[in-house]
Amino acid sequence: MTTEFTDWVRAHRARIEDWLAVHLPGQDLLPGRLHEAMRYSVLGGGKRMRPLLAYAAGELAGATAAQVDVVAGAVELIHAYSLVHDDMPCMDNDVLRRGRPTCHVQFGEATALLVGDSLQSLAFELLAGTLVCDDARDQLRLLRLLGEASGAQGMAGGQAFDLASVQSALTLPELESMHQRKTGALIRAAILLGAGCGKGVDATTHAALDHFAKAAGLAFQVIDDVLDAEADTATLGKTAGKDAADGKPTYVSLLGLRDARSLAQELYSGALAALEPLGNSAGRLRALAAFIVERRH
Amino acid sequence: MTTEFTDWVRAHRARIEDWLAVHLPGQDLLPGRLHEAMRYSVLGGGKRMRPLLAYAAGELAGATAAQVDVVAGAVELIHAYSLVHDDMPCMDNDVLRRGRPTCHVQFGEATALLVGDSLQSLAFELLAGTLVCDDARDQLRLLRLLGEASGAQGMAGGQAFDLASVQSALTLPELESMHQRKTGALIRAAILLGAGCGKGVDATTHAALDHFAKAAGLAFQVIDDVLDAEADTATLGKTAGKDAADGKPTYVSLLGLRDARSLAQELYSGALAALEPLGNSAGRLRALAAFIVERRH
Repeated sequence: MTTEFTDWVRAHRARIEDWLAVHLPGQDLLPGRLHEAMRYSVLGGGKRMRPLLAYAAGELAGATAAQVDVVAGAVELIHAYSLVHDDMPCMDNDVLRRGRPTCHVQFGEATALLVGDSLQSLAFELLAGTLVCDDARDQLRLLRLLGEASGAQGMAGGQAFDLASVQSALTLPELESMHQRKTGALIRAAILLGAGCGKGVDATTHAALDHFAKAAGLAFQVIDDVLDAEADTATLGKTAGKDAADGKPTYVSLLGLRDARSLAQELYSGALAALEPLGNSAGRLRALAAFIVERRH
Repeated sequence: MTTEFTDWVRAHRARIEDWLAVHLPGQDLLPGRLHEAMRYSVLGGGKRMRPLLAYAAGELAGATAAQVDVVAGAVELIHAYSLVHDDMPCMDNDVLRRGRPTCHVQFGEATALLVGDSLQSLAFELLAGTLVCDDARDQLRLLRLLGEASGAQGMAGGQAFDLASVQSALTLPELESMHQRKTGALIRAAILLGAGCGKGVDATTHAALDHFAKAAGLAFQVIDDVLDAEADTATLGKTAGKDAADGKPTYVSLLGLRDARSLAQELYSGALAALEPLGNSAGRLRALAAFIVERRH
């Protein structure tokens, strides 16, 4: 990674962290414990991969960073809510996230349930509350896309597939279909919402970004599976080896480590190829794709 | 109740039932079990009080029923998601709802969690997906209002207060503040979203409706407490006497049955007074307020 890119990542992580800190309700405001638990679950950690993708895509639309803040923040709030709910005992029952106790361990299950619910509401409230598109009708389209990506045909539906797949033998296309919903849909939304800010992008750029998002999102998941199998808990900041222990099918359990790594490289090449029509303007997205396949946690 | 009003209620309940049935994902679509559980939790029952209030308020804006369908449906989906999550073991742990097993009893806790999450996403997706306001910027305001009413400063925050209040001695103003969030916020949203359809209403009408919504929403909750204390489980369709058994403060535990009934009557009078500036055009809302305080389940 170039220094310029590393600086950009650091600056934009700090930027979205600040934005989230300002827009999450304060602990001094009632109900204080709920707000404290919301802030605990969102702030202070995370790769902020989805916001970074939104900022990078927003550059293609010529959007201001202030416009992209809103969509980046909304997508990150949806992601954060999903982690809180997925960690709960009735789901993945995980106790560690970003190196700290998960929300339900720290605040109790009932509060964790309400934290997730409230973060989802807040995402839509904030995205509806500031005009980020030159045309308000385009912003309604972004809100609809965020809803689709989050719901039964997107992220939540992917989690339902995931639960149903425990101890079952999925084929590779089935595993891909599950992950396109579970993680792919929201990564795609981050990119397309970023590109939808301001005046938006033309149809060719939109199609290229959609293609890129699909490959990069899947690469992200394949690498997640590789890291879950390889890394230790301390590096990962969450319980390592948990998928295998839970009997969940992963790219590593289906393909083995070496072929899973090869698949990630193939998807990476596909992601770069998708960006070719965009030339130099897509440099940031290329760097983020490299970052996704090279990350260690 | 006049026959005309009874017919109107019946027709609009059927109307929103049909709309919801069409807009909830089908069981034939993957993930089928999640969709089945979503449909189970939303369809086939419920007073549909919030949709009825939205339709009645929509008449004041001269909105078409098709426009109001969308906001009525979105509000009802938020309400339905809250029931599914509130019934879960880590919250109120209730097994009966609308005379049937609750969602988590029928489908398991993990699915119930995802049902609530997906219904909330669907509410925003659908409200963003059809233009119901003459000006798209007004529709963004409606989406923001729905988000506020649902989240930490609205319904979910009210539920957090409710959990914290178990076995504690709330004052009457504290109880009122809790219910203004827990049930009041979404009832207010139903009315203001209905009135926001089409060209919307003028500032005087908006203020009158806001005042009406506050009184009617609180009356609704007071009557809920009275019915919970008086009625049997069969009539109620949910476990009767549960609040008292759970040590939750209610209007009946604070005031006694007789004074709680008087308070409901006072709130009803206040609701009617708020509608005075609107004259004959608010007849439907008056009838709904009477319906709220006279209901038996």
